[in-house]
Amino acid sequence: MLNIVQIGAIGHYAYALPTARKYNMKFSGITFPHAEDGRERAMRNLARFGFEPHIYEDWKEMLEVEKPDIAVVNTVMAKNGEIAQAALSMGISVFCEKPVATTLDGLFALENVYYEAKARYADRNLCFAGMFGIDYLPHFETAYRFVKAGGIGEVRLANAQKSYRMGNREAFYSDREQYGGTIPWVAIHAIEWVERIGALRPMTVMAYGSTACNAGNGTMEASTLCVFGCEDGKMASVSADVMRPKMAPSHDDDRLRLVGSEGVLEVRGGRVFVIDKDGEREIPLVQTETELFEEMILEMQGKGKCRVSAEDTFLATRTALLARESEDTGNLMEIKSI
Amino acid sequence: MLNIVQIGAIGHYAYALPTARKYNMKFSGITFPHAEDGRERAMRNLARFGFEPHIYEDWKEMLEVEKPDIAVVNTVMAKNGEIAQAALSMGISVFCEKPVATTLDGLFALENVYYEAKARYADRNLCFAGMFGIDYLPHFETAYRFVKAGGIGEVRLANAQKSYRMGNREAFYSDREQYGGTIPWVAIHAIEWVERIGALRPMTVMAYGSTACNAGNGTMEASTLCVFGCEDGKMASVSADVMRPKMAPSHDDDRLRLVGSEGVLEVRGGRVFVIDKDGEREIPLVQTETELFEEMILEMQGKGKCRVSAEDTFLATRTALLARESEDTGNLMEIKSI
Repeated sequence: MLNIVQIGAIGHYAYALPTARKYNMKFSGITFPHAEDGRERAMRNLARFGFEPHIYEDWKEMLEVEKPDIAVVNTVMAKNGEIAQAALSMGISVFCEKPVATTLDGLFALENVYYEAKARYADRNLCFAGMFGIDYLPHFETAYRFVKAGGIGEVRLANAQKSYRMGNREAFYSDREQYGGTIPWVAIHAIEWVERIGALRPMTVMAYGSTACNAGNGTMEASTLCVFGCEDGKMASVSADVMRPKMAPSHDDDRLRLVGSEGVLEVRGGRVFVIDKDGEREIPLVQTETELFEEMILEMQGKGKCRVSAEDTFLATRTALLARESEDTGNLMEIKSI
Repeated sequence: MLNIVQIGAIGHYAYALPTARKYNMKFSGITFPHAEDGRERAMRNLARFGFEPHIYEDWKEMLEVEKPDIAVVNTVMAKNGEIAQAALSMGISVFCEKPVATTLDGLFALENVYYEAKARYADRNLCFAGMFGIDYLPHFETAYRFVKAGGIGEVRLANAQKSYRMGNREAFYSDREQYGGTIPWVAIHAIEWVERIGALRPMTVMAYGSTACNAGNGTMEASTLCVFGCEDGKMASVSADVMRPKMAPSHDDDRLRLVGSEGVLEVRGGRVFVIDKDGEREIPLVQTETELFEEMILEMQGKGKCRVSAEDTFLATRTALLARESEDTGNLMEIKSI
């Protein structure tokens, strides 16, 4: 029986619950390190799945006492990387909210710890997965499969978009130090699509951001825009804003347009459109067979691989953090591997 | 009776013909400076409107002999600026294909000549208009009016797109020196929307371009991407490609998304969509009362003003040429006024 614990309740921990139930996991402990980790709501959500974990005050103590197989890490973003590092060093697989690090140094440390732990605990399939649950939505999975099957040839140009309603945000979103900023927090999804679905490899980035119209949310950028020069002369733009009007028909307006050597694919409004040698058409959506967290469990059991790998997560995080550095410095940034 | 001449036949001279007919102009001369100026086709098109101009071999001689009120200038782009300068210095109004200059020096010279000529021929309304006919399409005029009326508040973020089918291009498009490159030739439209419709003022630009997948068209970029940092922390992206598949339902896929303080407006597929405090809806299209060239004639007669002014044309050209410089040098460029 897999033993699972949870640290924090700010992010998408709910992704884990159906699978934890399905696999009859032991949900042994939970802890709420940040004042805004919604304790009551999380305990209610867990109870709905039949889980009544022991509440710890200290996450380190919890990891030492419970020695779990898996830690779900989703307290305030600036803390998640440090917690993930501690868990990985103990041989615990980590399901982590994005951004998995909010500084380049933190990301560097996390990557090192991950690869060291993978080697040290070679007897188990130690996993690290970012909460990129959006990639499991049918439209993005459909786009991924179509592009991977060569449907539009080689992608040369990508335009990606995230647009959210502001909604009511916890106070920590007013402090960019705590959640990482709008590029690592929101744009990162679109960056990850460009990299994983479009197979583009960003080499340079120029980015802009502005706090104007942020509804009083302190240092949160309401609008951001990044352009990436990619390997082999390819290119991508990522537009991310939190300015979608309240009365919009949906919370988000996720889009991805990929211009390939053999056609153009577009994700828009939860649908997928293709123009190729056969003309323009909407393509039928495929359903993902397994959810994000279940895929991670299967990978731990040696039965598969998360479609968003640890490497994908690290790459998207590095790209997002360097984009933020461009935004902050006004300089064109190079995106180097560690 | 207004006297009109035409120089070259590569561009959108046809914009001028209905108005030239309507105003009973004397179409006195035409000349074809470039080998690829389609002489026979142009003469057929003019004849259809009842015009049978004298064919000159030399455009300078034609301007001196005919002393026209208006010159329609649309030979190969790299030549248009020089011809426009000569005409303006003689007090002749110019209707000019875009880009109106293909080098920054050329643009600088053209602007100077224009302002000098405006002062020297203060007795007439000397006009200079770029062939931005797309702005007169109902969807762009509708967007313009909605935004100007404050419909989405202050625009903070713009995403603009031009996507063309490659089609069969004249040979000179294989030589970027001659047509200016894909940014000054195609992306310039989207740049002009961002500036005139979105009221954004670009201050810095980072741009990328690639000749991959250009169907053998030499130095023509098939894909380009620009990001602009604008005044007051606003921002814009402009994606322009010539990779729209042959079987696409239309030649172009023009788009403009403007994210404002009070709503989001989008031009897509010849339609205009708005999301604001009243929710999401398509807004009815308005028709422009006068065509581009007729507006220029009315301005010459002191009866109005071209919606795309000489200043708008110069600004979009400067922005496009600096974007191309960023593309070529790999450097972030500042966009300065002259």
